[in-house]
Amino acid sequence: MIESTPLPLAEPEKHLRADAVRNRALLLEAAARLAEERGAAAITMEAVAAAAGVGKGTVSRRFGDRNGLLQALLDHSERRFQESFLSGPPPLGPGATAAARLRAFGPALLRHEHAHHDLYLAAEPSAARRFAVPARQVRHRHVAVLVAAVLPDADAELLAHTLLSSVDVVLVDHLARGHGVSPARVEAAWHGLLDRLLA
Amino acid sequence: MIESTPLPLAEPEKHLRADAVRNRALLLEAAARLAEERGAAAITMEAVAAAAGVGKGTVSRRFGDRNGLLQALLDHSERRFQESFLSGPPPLGPGATAAARLRAFGPALLRHEHAHHDLYLAAEPSAARRFAVPARQVRHRHVAVLVAAVLPDADAELLAHTLLSSVDVVLVDHLARGHGVSPARVEAAWHGLLDRLLA
Repeated sequence: MIESTPLPLAEPEKHLRADAVRNRALLLEAAARLAEERGAAAITMEAVAAAAGVGKGTVSRRFGDRNGLLQALLDHSERRFQESFLSGPPPLGPGATAAARLRAFGPALLRHEHAHHDLYLAAEPSAARRFAVPARQVRHRHVAVLVAAVLPDADAELLAHTLLSSVDVVLVDHLARGHGVSPARVEAAWHGLLDRLLA
Repeated sequence: MIESTPLPLAEPEKHLRADAVRNRALLLEAAARLAEERGAAAITMEAVAAAAGVGKGTVSRRFGDRNGLLQALLDHSERRFQESFLSGPPPLGPGATAAARLRAFGPALLRHEHAHHDLYLAAEPSAARRFAVPARQVRHRHVAVLVAAVLPDADAELLAHTLLSSVDVVLVDHLARGHGVSPARVEAAWHGLLDRLLA
């Protein structure tokens, strides 16, 4: 069993007045609904304003531009995903063995990325920033701690990067679109890799 | 032992007249020298023209723009790297066991990427194209064939992506710059991973 480690979340919610918080949540919900119904491409400042019944200026004041809005939407769902593996129920959260938590993490990340698939692709950072985004660093820290617990002799930092790369959203998208590889097959490969590593 | 597989190289040299071929080689050599001495940032159309003793128009006619020039320079060295693992001496080339060739491939790729390090970073493709560039596809095919030979029960296609990701030039750069991780440690992690997989 492994203790939950206190980690920085994606980005702390800014300190806002109560009505501003409600306002922000309302806009993010409207944007999330649009993404779910019509894909990330449908998320424009105008469409979100219309869906939330406010003026476009309100959306701009809150998020700056479309990139800011996409990032806020990802942070929002990233935070829930982080809570699930840092403090949620086992086997993903604390209370299960490190091996069980490691096994559960790959499929959970695949499902999370699948649900927000085109949002992630729309917001994919540049090559230079790919490994430096806070969400990636939190995932890496989490997986490295679990790897160190189950494989004390391994280079846990580097092996954690390798494991995360195997379920990277851009790779999974490339495999699905270009080669007809199903999410189930990627998930099976995650377990197959862990089977060999933990044998 | 595993047969060498005929694979498409990075990009076939275009059919050029003899003087055009000499001219192109001269410009690429000048660009490679500039990159070696002063880094990829020093490669401009003007600098290459000056170093090769020709006018800037000659460089433009041959490569289009700076991106075309960087890409041609990478193709040039990529072709030599591909020859080394497809038809070069063992253990990298044919004649060694699949396991020995797989072990040799990681360090060879790391050295190749290290030598052309800032060229790769300057020419890093967009997220959507990252896995679709021909050089990446050739490497993936090669590693997948070797993995299938040594681990017949594994999902060789997916495991090959995972292995390649562990020595990805952008990751290695991030680890070196952000975390002081040496190339030797990345190489040791490649062997450590293979030790576990082939145990």
